Amino acid sequence: MKIGIVGYGNLGKGVEACLTLNPDMELAAVFTRRDLKEVRLHSKNVPLYSLAEAIPMKDAIDVIINCGGSATDLPVTSPELAEHFHMVDSYDTHAKINEHFEKVDQAARKGSKLSIISGGWDPGMFSLARLYALAILPAGKGYTFWGKGVSQGHSDAIRRIPGVLDARQYTIPKQEALELVRSGKNPDLTTREKHIRECFVVAEEGADQQAIEQAIKTMPNYFADYDTIVHFITQEELLQKHGGLPHGGFVIRSGSTGWHGENKHTIEYSLKLDSNPEFTASVLVACARAAYRMGGRGEIGCRTVFDVPPCDLALGGSAELRAHLL
Amino acid sequence: MKIGIVGYGNLGKGVEACLTLNPDMELAAVFTRRDLKEVRLHSKNVPLYSLAEAIPMKDAIDVIINCGGSATDLPVTSPELAEHFHMVDSYDTHAKINEHFEKVDQAARKGSKLSIISGGWDPGMFSLARLYALAILPAGKGYTFWGKGVSQGHSDAIRRIPGVLDARQYTIPKQEALELVRSGKNPDLTTREKHIRECFVVAEEGADQQAIEQAIKTMPNYFADYDTIVHFITQEELLQKHGGLPHGGFVIRSGSTGWHGENKHTIEYSLKLDSNPEFTASVLVACARAAYRMGGRGEIGCRTVFDVPPCDLALGGSAELRAHLL
Repeated sequence: MKIGIVGYGNLGKGVEACLTLNPDMELAAVFTRRDLKEVRLHSKNVPLYSLAEAIPMKDAIDVIINCGGSATDLPVTSPELAEHFHMVDSYDTHAKINEHFEKVDQAARKGSKLSIISGGWDPGMFSLARLYALAILPAGKGYTFWGKGVSQGHSDAIRRIPGVLDARQYTIPKQEALELVRSGKNPDLTTREKHIRECFVVAEEGADQQAIEQAIKTMPNYFADYDTIVHFITQEELLQKHGGLPHGGFVIRSGSTGWHGENKHTIEYSLKLDSNPEFTASVLVACARAAYRMGGRGEIGCRTVFDVPPCDLALGGSAELRAHLL
Repeated sequence: MKIGIVGYGNLGKGVEACLTLNPDMELAAVFTRRDLKEVRLHSKNVPLYSLAEAIPMKDAIDVIINCGGSATDLPVTSPELAEHFHMVDSYDTHAKINEHFEKVDQAARKGSKLSIISGGWDPGMFSLARLYALAILPAGKGYTFWGKGVSQGHSDAIRRIPGVLDARQYTIPKQEALELVRSGKNPDLTTREKHIRECFVVAEEGADQQAIEQAIKTMPNYFADYDTIVHFITQEELLQKHGGLPHGGFVIRSGSTGWHGENKHTIEYSLKLDSNPEFTASVLVACARAAYRMGGRGEIGCRTVFDVPPCDLALGGSAELRAHLL
C-alpha cells in the first residue's frame, strides 16, 4: 500500500512516523504547500513535492492521508484530492461535518474513489464509542469529557491577548462530575460542572497580569462559562514543563434495561495520550488501510468511521482476527 | 422489523424486555424446546411456539435472535436457523468460533440469508475494543480483565462438589495489575496476578467445610491457578446478597508512537453491568438491526461484529448519526 502525505505539520510528521509501525504500508511521497527548500523530511529516500504535483502522481499512490487543518485547508483540498485518490482526512469541525461529507462524497463518486473523513479520536474513536453505546443502551444518557490535555485553540486564544508572549491551556475534567456520571445517576451537567480550564501564561515584562487574567477569564465561548485558573510562568518553564501536546478524555454512557429499568449498566471508553497529533495520525493510518480495502472492493464515495467495518482497519485477515481477538 | 426469539432462559427474557426499548422492532414470536404448558411469556399477545414450528414461519419473521447456550444448543440450532432466517447468536466458545462461523456461513449462503454470530460483550464489545486498539496502536500490548462479576461456569463447578448445596463465584480483577497495565509498562502478568476468585458457598449441614474449601482451591483449570477466597454462608444470605448476575471488565491496550517509541498512549474500554444476560441481550438486539439492514442490502453469509459497519447497529440514518454523534 503506497501512502502519500499531504501537509507536513505535527499531524503529517506523526503519520510519517506511524507508517513505519505498519509493515503493509510504505510512504511514497510527501506533498506540501510550503517552499520546498524550507522543508526537510525525517525519512530518507522519500520524495518531497509541492501540492500542485500531487494529482499527476495519482497512479503512483494508493491512498492520500490529508493532514491539513480543518479551518481552511481541508474544506478545499479534501474534495480536490478525493476525486483522484482514495483519501483520508481528520476534518474536525463537528458542526460542519455533513457539509464536508457531501462535498467529498460528490468528488469521490465523480472519480470512482473512496474517502474516509473525520478520522482521529474526536471525531473518530470517541464518536464510535458514543455510537456503539447508544446502539446498545438506547434508554440512557451519554457524556463526553476531554482532558487532561492541551487545547491548541484555547492556547491560541490566550496568545492573542495584548501583553501575552506565550500560553498553554489544559482542559481538565472535573473528578466529581466523572464520578457522578459513572455512578449511573445520569445528571444534567452544566459546562462549568464538567471541565476546568487551567492556563499557563508567559506575560511580557511589565504587562498588567491582573488585566490579562481578567481578559482570559471573561473571554466569551472560550473561558467565560468555565472555572478558569491562570498561572504566570516564565518562557523557560513553559517550554520545559508544558512543551508536549498530551490529551485524552472519557466517553461514558449509563443506561438501564429490564421491564422497569431496574438494571443499570455503564460503558466507558477512555484515552490517555502523550501526543495528540501522533495518536490522531495512528487512527488516520488505520483508516487509510480501510480506505484501500473498501476502495479495492469497488466501493466509492465518502465514508466516516461509522461506515467502516472494524476488521478493515486492522492488519490481518478476517479468520485470523476472529481466532485471536474475538 | 419483526423479531423471533429462540430460547426463553435468562438471555431470551432479556431480549424480550430490551425489544421494548427499540421502537423499530416488534416481538413476533418466541420459540422454545420446553413443554409449552410450562412456559409463560412476560409479553401479552405474543405467541409462543415449539422450536419445530419456527422454520414454517420464516416469512413472518425478519430476524431470529437465537438465545440458546453455546455448549450444546447453538452449534446445532444456529446453522439450522441461519438457512431460513437472518439470525443473530451469542456463541461464546472462543476457541471454536471459526468452526461455528464456517457452519453458519455455509447455511446462510445456502438460504441467501445473513447471520451475525458471537454478539454480546465478550465475545462482542470487548472483541471490538481489542480490535480497534490493535489497529491504532500496533506497537503495544493488550490486556483483558473480567469482573467484578459472577462467573456462571465457575459457580456451577463449585456446585458439583459433594456437600455443596449452592454457590456463587465472583471473578475480580486485581487492582495492582490494572494500575500496572494503565501505567503503560506493558507487564507480563500470570493468571494469578490478574484475577482473584471469590466464592460464596452454601454447604450441607454437617459437611466438611475444610474439605470443600480444599476441593475448590485445588480444582484444575477453574481455581488452582488463582488466589481463591472461600466464604461459607447460608442459603438465605446467598439469595439476598448474591442473587444477581452482575459482570463487567476492562480491555486496555498501551502502545507507543514516534520515531523512538517516545510517546505512550493508553486506550481503555470498560463495562460495569448490573445484569450480564440483559446487557448481552442488548447487544444482540443491536446486532439484529444490523443483520436486517445488511441482509436487506443483499449481503449473505456469516458475519461477526468485526464485519458490521457500526452505523448499522444504531437506530437512525447515517446523516443524522453523523450530525449528532460524530
